[in-house]
Amino acid sequence: MGSPALIKTVAGARAWRAMRSRAGAGVALVPTMGNLHAGHAALIDAARRTADFVVVSVFVNPTQFGPGEDYASYPRTLEQDRTLAGEHEADAVFAPNAVEMYPNGLEEAVMVQAPAALAGILCGAQRPGHFTGVASVVARLLNIVQPEYALFGEKDYQQLLVIRRLAEDLFIDTGIVGVPTVREADGLALSSRNQYLTAGERARAPALYQALAAARDEMLAGAETAAVESRGRDVLSAAGFRPEYFEVRHGADLGPPRAGGPRVILAAGWLGKARLIDNIKIE
Amino acid sequence: MGSPALIKTVAGARAWRAMRSRAGAGVALVPTMGNLHAGHAALIDAARRTADFVVVSVFVNPTQFGPGEDYASYPRTLEQDRTLAGEHEADAVFAPNAVEMYPNGLEEAVMVQAPAALAGILCGAQRPGHFTGVASVVARLLNIVQPEYALFGEKDYQQLLVIRRLAEDLFIDTGIVGVPTVREADGLALSSRNQYLTAGERARAPALYQALAAARDEMLAGAETAAVESRGRDVLSAAGFRPEYFEVRHGADLGPPRAGGPRVILAAGWLGKARLIDNIKIE
Repeated sequence: MGSPALIKTVAGARAWRAMRSRAGAGVALVPTMGNLHAGHAALIDAARRTADFVVVSVFVNPTQFGPGEDYASYPRTLEQDRTLAGEHEADAVFAPNAVEMYPNGLEEAVMVQAPAALAGILCGAQRPGHFTGVASVVARLLNIVQPEYALFGEKDYQQLLVIRRLAEDLFIDTGIVGVPTVREADGLALSSRNQYLTAGERARAPALYQALAAARDEMLAGAETAAVESRGRDVLSAAGFRPEYFEVRHGADLGPPRAGGPRVILAAGWLGKARLIDNIKIE
Repeated sequence: MGSPALIKTVAGARAWRAMRSRAGAGVALVPTMGNLHAGHAALIDAARRTADFVVVSVFVNPTQFGPGEDYASYPRTLEQDRTLAGEHEADAVFAPNAVEMYPNGLEEAVMVQAPAALAGILCGAQRPGHFTGVASVVARLLNIVQPEYALFGEKDYQQLLVIRRLAEDLFIDTGIVGVPTVREADGLALSSRNQYLTAGERARAPALYQALAAARDEMLAGAETAAVESRGRDVLSAAGFRPEYFEVRHGADLGPPRAGGPRVILAAGWLGKARLIDNIKIE
């Protein structure tokens, strides 16, 4: 097992990559913002099963935070992250700083913009520029590491679709793999932001997943979409959330649900200082 | 010599690339919009000297044309282009259509945006979105072909800097090479758009380069920048141009010229239906 190599520079990451064969099952990248928990561990485990070499990137990406968001306070726990990555047999941790990742500065950075129809809705409507920041840092990470695979959690469902579109549309030669959400015993999806919750908020937080599961059951029973969405928002409000959205969408492009197509229900809301998101497939 | 392979699909271009070794001097890409002339030939010749394999892309990129610009009428001459590429010993011509390059459509395309300080000035101010289109198509071409080198003409000086920034900032592992402008005997820079000129306009067109050369000489003689720029615009107007800009800039970032730094003079203007651009270094 041992401690994974700690790589701090782009040049170091490229050198690490260049020494790993492109033959066989190659390299898998697990991009994270650090503060690793069991959800990230599931990503690393999936990467381990997918590829010969696994690198976990740890980078709190400034361009995906809006003004007033939690960029400064986002938990940074690199030494614990490296330990957890080692326990799950990652080969390397790539933890660059912002100057490495944005060598021309944040104002002068080349940015990658997903289409508004996909990235300007739901979380993108609530957090303008967020997915441009996500796409811009993921494009950089994929170009630096050139992995055969990159793994992302399905909890951030819209992010996963934005990244799939990024790779497909820009012809980035990396397979984008979604990994199912890891949940606490009471259903709450694991997130670094759960630690912003007070004990009382934590007790109410599972209402988000419960509302999604109930909405899924109603949809499968043939209920009317708008009514299901409305009830979902009401349930969140009753549980003490300030709901942002609760929407049934097409599973592949997040457009309106279409007959016969895959469907997903996505929700976001604030509970105290924590913005929580989650989703559930209708199937 | 022979006729270069004609590749129409992204899959074909990737297969062609995969068969060319990454060892040795590798692959050089010459991105063009086709209608090849001696300026492109100089790019292909430089690529031939740089790499073991040369591929010329021919794609009139819709996303870099604004509304009312000459996208529909831009000259398309693929068979002649292939012949010229073969005469200059290119190994392949990659000529995809817009559906290949933008598989999710133009409205739904992921776009790559260079910073406004570099891409929103000069030609970028006159043609909003132009360099976003350029960066978006060049990122795609570089990702598809994964060349060791890509060659661009210095005539499109701002474009060359935008592409250098794109590769640097997104960590695209391709060397960006600028190739000196090829000129007619009377100084006019070669451009596919020169054929939009009437005979009378063609006779006046060398005034653009003459004005730049005169401005360079004045700058070297210590003249005041604003006066030189103003005289340049007047000379263009007197020659029948509708000048767009005539500017002395820093050679590396197109900011204001700075003491001791490289300097370049860039100019653009309309002569009849043709928009002509050119530039000259002060050295």
